Amino acid sequence: MAQLPDISGGPAVETIRVAVIGYGYWGPNLVRNFSGLDGCEVTAVCDRDPDSLARASRLYPTIRVTDSAEELLSGAGIDAVAIATPVSSHFELARRVIESGRHVLIEKPMTSTADEARQLIEMADAAGVVLMVDHTFLYTGAVRKIRELLDDDELGTPYYFDSERISLGLLQQDINVVWDLAPHDLSILQFLFDERPESLQAVGYRHVGSELDEMASLNLHYPSGLHAQVRVSWLSPVKVRRTLIGGSRRMVVFDDVEPSEKVRVYEKGVALDLVDEEVTALKPIYRAGDVHIPALDRTEALQVEAAHFIECIREGHEPLTGGAEGLAVIELLEAADRSMAAGGEFVSLGS
Amino acid sequence: MAQLPDISGGPAVETIRVAVIGYGYWGPNLVRNFSGLDGCEVTAVCDRDPDSLARASRLYPTIRVTDSAEELLSGAGIDAVAIATPVSSHFELARRVIESGRHVLIEKPMTSTADEARQLIEMADAAGVVLMVDHTFLYTGAVRKIRELLDDDELGTPYYFDSERISLGLLQQDINVVWDLAPHDLSILQFLFDERPESLQAVGYRHVGSELDEMASLNLHYPSGLHAQVRVSWLSPVKVRRTLIGGSRRMVVFDDVEPSEKVRVYEKGVALDLVDEEVTALKPIYRAGDVHIPALDRTEALQVEAAHFIECIREGHEPLTGGAEGLAVIELLEAADRSMAAGGEFVSLGS
Amino acid sequence: MAQLPDISGGPAVETIRVAVIGYGYWGPNLVRNFSGLDGCEVTAVCDRDPDSLARASRLYPTIRVTDSAEELLSGAGIDAVAIATPVSSHFELARRVIESGRHVLIEKPMTSTADEARQLIEMADAAGVVLMVDHTFLYTGAVRKIRELLDDDELGTPYYFDSERISLGLLQQDINVVWDLAPHDLSILQFLFDERPESLQAVGYRHVGSELDEMASLNLHYPSGLHAQVRVSWLSPVKVRRTLIGGSRRMVVFDDVEPSEKVRVYEKGVALDLVDEEVTALKPIYRAGDVHIPALDRTEALQVEAAHFIECIREGHEPLTGGAEGLAVIELLEAADRSMAAGGEFVSLGS
Amino acid sequence: MAQLPDISGGPAVETIRVAVIGYGYWGPNLVRNFSGLDGCEVTAVCDRDPDSLARASRLYPTIRVTDSAEELLSGAGIDAVAIATPVSSHFELARRVIESGRHVLIEKPMTSTADEARQLIEMADAAGVVLMVDHTFLYTGAVRKIRELLDDDELGTPYYFDSERISLGLLQQDINVVWDLAPHDLSILQFLFDERPESLQAVGYRHVGSELDEMASLNLHYPSGLHAQVRVSWLSPVKVRRTLIGGSRRMVVFDDVEPSEKVRVYEKGVALDLVDEEVTALKPIYRAGDVHIPALDRTEALQVEAAHFIECIREGHEPLTGGAEGLAVIELLEAADRSMAAGGEFVSLGS
Repeated sequence: MAQLPDISGGPAVETIRVAVIGYGYWGPNLVRNFSGLDGCEVTAVCDRDPDSLARASRLYPTIRVTDSAEELLSGAGIDAVAIATPVSSHFELARRVIESGRHVLIEKPMTSTADEARQLIEMADAAGVVLMVDHTFLYTGAVRKIRELLDDDELGTPYYFDSERISLGLLQQDINVVWDLAPHDLSILQFLFDERPESLQAVGYRHVGSELDEMASLNLHYPSGLHAQVRVSWLSPVKVRRTLIGGSRRMVVFDDVEPSEKVRVYEKGVALDLVDEEVTALKPIYRAGDVHIPALDRTEALQVEAAHFIECIREGHEPLTGGAEGLAVIELLEAADRSMAAGGEFVSLGS
Repeated sequence: MAQLPDISGGPAVETIRVAVIGYGYWGPNLVRNFSGLDGCEVTAVCDRDPDSLARASRLYPTIRVTDSAEELLSGAGIDAVAIATPVSSHFELARRVIESGRHVLIEKPMTSTADEARQLIEMADAAGVVLMVDHTFLYTGAVRKIRELLDDDELGTPYYFDSERISLGLLQQDINVVWDLAPHDLSILQFLFDERPESLQAVGYRHVGSELDEMASLNLHYPSGLHAQVRVSWLSPVKVRRTLIGGSRRMVVFDDVEPSEKVRVYEKGVALDLVDEEVTALKPIYRAGDVHIPALDRTEALQVEAAHFIECIREGHEPLTGGAEGLAVIELLEAADRSMAAGGEFVSLGS
Repeated sequence: MAQLPDISGGPAVETIRVAVIGYGYWGPNLVRNFSGLDGCEVTAVCDRDPDSLARASRLYPTIRVTDSAEELLSGAGIDAVAIATPVSSHFELARRVIESGRHVLIEKPMTSTADEARQLIEMADAAGVVLMVDHTFLYTGAVRKIRELLDDDELGTPYYFDSERISLGLLQQDINVVWDLAPHDLSILQFLFDERPESLQAVGYRHVGSELDEMASLNLHYPSGLHAQVRVSWLSPVKVRRTLIGGSRRMVVFDDVEPSEKVRVYEKGVALDLVDEEVTALKPIYRAGDVHIPALDRTEALQVEAAHFIECIREGHEPLTGGAEGLAVIELLEAADRSMAAGGEFVSLGS
Repeated sequence: MAQLPDISGGPAVETIRVAVIGYGYWGPNLVRNFSGLDGCEVTAVCDRDPDSLARASRLYPTIRVTDSAEELLSGAGIDAVAIATPVSSHFELARRVIESGRHVLIEKPMTSTADEARQLIEMADAAGVVLMVDHTFLYTGAVRKIRELLDDDELGTPYYFDSERISLGLLQQDINVVWDLAPHDLSILQFLFDERPESLQAVGYRHVGSELDEMASLNLHYPSGLHAQVRVSWLSPVKVRRTLIGGSRRMVVFDDVEPSEKVRVYEKGVALDLVDEEVTALKPIYRAGDVHIPALDRTEALQVEAAHFIECIREGHEPLTGGAEGLAVIELLEAADRSMAAGGEFVSLGS
């Protein structure tokens, strides 16, 4: 597992100056976390909405605010840019950031198409800048603990990954619910398991609006026999953020709504035993053992991620969630769209 | 909504004598509930396992026990038979019960094939005996309350029915997890909504054994735009029995694991509003109102159902869960099997 | 810790014949559990209420029923009697049972006064019969697991025992809420810790009726510094059955409302550390470690207890919850009454 | 019920300049909330710890920071001061603030003694400045909703207020757990009910340290028959913030740990009915009705409170939680200390 930086600071270095484009729902979290980081400073915020800029100014009177990304990028005093705007603008903004020679952190999902993602990867590579995608969950103590359990073979053969991510709203204007919520699960799947799905199937539904699906369920098949279910919805009266991971030896429940006990490891399972050699009858043997709730690193994930971004810039490291990881998620989202358009048919994911 | 009998008793009538075939997991509940009913008596229990018969005898020393269904049916003193054996034996046993001129209550799912179900319906019709299927959930206070909410148009236009029925085990020997667990949801769907699904899709997985799927998810589409998701699993470390029902006005959560607060009605929803007439932009309007937890009739469902069976026998009433309802569930299960065999394709359900 | 019997049976022995007096709320559980036991048979049930007797007869047609305890005790075919009547009748009934030379199991609390309890102990001793009190909790897997944790010094120095046992009803007619509910906690305290409280304080309240307190809280002080809080109520809208046990090394939460995860062990704690030797400043050091939920023996407690009672009769063993244990609880209840009468003053518990 | 200000802003007025003394746990919340308020500006922060000041500077580069309260108060550009330091320093700091002619908001508990509180009230009165105490809970949607239910007589005659406020740490250096946590409940009690307690009893325990009690329980008696229990602890492995309020008609559970459904109203109760006129036997009648979870105003309480403080300054209003309310809480805390010192005796609270 990639080593993340020790965020406790270190010797003084030159400050990395960060700008944030998009100060709506997620932008303030980016500003707050980069501001709180040693060796890093937020110097500018850009948003089209004057109220958002006013809010930013009130909290951070020294930060330069502007409603023009062009103006922001043409100015000086910026080493890296974090983009937290609607998805449809990601490619164009990221392109300009890279062209201006700056490092870029893009909110998930990375772009509107895989093709755009591939272009950004090439451009960043050519420009020698860091390109990172904000798949925040991979920086949580919970997901990193589950990866640890898998690395230590605590779960045995992985059977399934079954995730539910539902609540009321927020309906997005430019992407459907799969593009909005499933990137979390798809990036976690990529991080946890060392294989890529070979086929995928998705069904979506819309009830309130007419253009974009508001509820969907995905099935992913993996070469090893592992399968994943991901259910996403903007129309649930209750908020559920729960992933079950079943293995031959143990099973894990990751419940992100729980305030403190997010990961539970169950010493539970079932196996088939030969009951009678002659007739080869099989009898299920159940294990119902202890439950273990490991203590987790509770550092805010975005703080870890911001520090990692800064470190990648400073040290030239490859990000844990770089362009390739972002692209792989977009490819699955496009496959899900194709499956939904084809009425729920399984879509092969090529090699 | 069908009126269920007042179980508080009434004037003395001739006693209905019930036999129970199958004294494994569910049989003891049948014996206990029929025994506790006025105007009804359990006179015989049949099971192949001598230990099961010994258990029955110890608790009910006056009940006749036998390991032969043939012997049981050839004897006297039995007016009706409840069958709680593995599914593969339902048809043959029910056929013999009907041929012997007795009323029959069959554990769900009714039979192994829709063809068998149709034969039983015809035979019972010809013989003039009551044929009832044990879809217990329709006799719970919770499901009846939800039906009431729908009847009173409290939920508005129904959007979706999203059910999760997962836990560890028990792996069945003769049916897959869909046939084991989904009948609950399929019978509830039939009871709640006045329409039949037009197409269905299912995906199943097996990890422990090799013959029968242990996890599955179903999608059902209805003519009105309603859709249903049903997820079933024998391989979950946690027990979940939760159904979300979303409507345009209110949403319901039915959580059967909750000891007392099983049904919650959310005054929550989302609608789209025209924001700007020129560009016809739409803005989601969220409602986040009160939650209401109605008090439910807490009579044991099987007690209500047993009383209903006896009443149907006595009064010649049509059962709420008769052969036709049982058959409709079997037809959906067969369609699910076809879809799973075809790799998750949608299967049309004809008229 | 006392070894409880293996309830899986053994070689055939002479059957112990049990009668149950009182077939209200708890009596049916006694009949069911003694009936289900190898080497044991329930031969008679006594209750003043004809409806209760009719219920017993319907379920167990071979059991003799009577509304007269005198008649029951004067007859033959009874080796032991379980008493599940209102507390005020315990002494008189138990006295007669012992005088008739039979073994006796008395529902908690043992008697209405400590004096009565002492008389019964003497009588049973003289008659050579087993006298046992139905402190059911000591036969649960949960309480036995906590005792194990204490025996293995997993918790370190015990700091506190803090218990809450509240719900709506059932108001008793002859005892206040302390006598109704606190015996559970007082018997658990006796079982878990090897010391007796040196003083006790109690405050009680009544709101609905006028004679008997419906809510109360007790504080018990132990010589070692351990203290216990017990809160009981008949007037809570929610049911809480939760005990916290704090130790210097670990802490336990026993939540009896949880269906399966009743005991949780927290690797959490706080200690004071010398920060600065000169000024001897102390800084709290917090430990926030894993949580562990041990698998528990899930045998029904009353089944274990019934088997233990039969074994004590058969083998001449001393019961885990004999007369002395029952008496000790009554002495604390009397002290609580004295404290409440004195307006909540601490009452010394003598040696 | 006092009307709180509409926080949505209004016509432009002269800005109120606020300084915050103490930037430890609570100070940052004060700075953030006053900063986010229209017509208000945080101009200075004071703390003795250079790290705290550095943190404040990083987030708010334009705010003046200082480690000297004297320097802060001798400077200009400050209209009001919020004090969030350890309790022992409240009086001295507030005294100086008032003497400098500024308005003051003091973290709870107001002072170390009732005498100090009385002096501050007199001084503020003489100086004509606003003196407000930070009893935050009275500004939550939850507590205000409960007050509404009481005002509308939804609960009937109030029977009890039963509160539990326990978790692990934080051990305070200058006050015991009663002074740390009970002010929340005592201020809520004052706000909800129109009467003052006539007597109080408290028992406290210490296990980790040696000077200050770490666990305690209080009983308060009111003239009307209402009684209150308040349990506080720094030594619980689980966090509980739960208040039960029982009335003759309905009961309320306020669970502050719940993320969204904090207040539940239970249509539950028990009453005694005359069963038999001759013998005046009483039979409890239980009501088990619906549960209602009202939607709450979810504005952050401190934002409402900060706006109220500013409004009181601007409009000359009397604060909802002024000096008198703060003093009343201190008087109860002192009484609790007296009771604990006297071994748990009830202490009369005078007129």
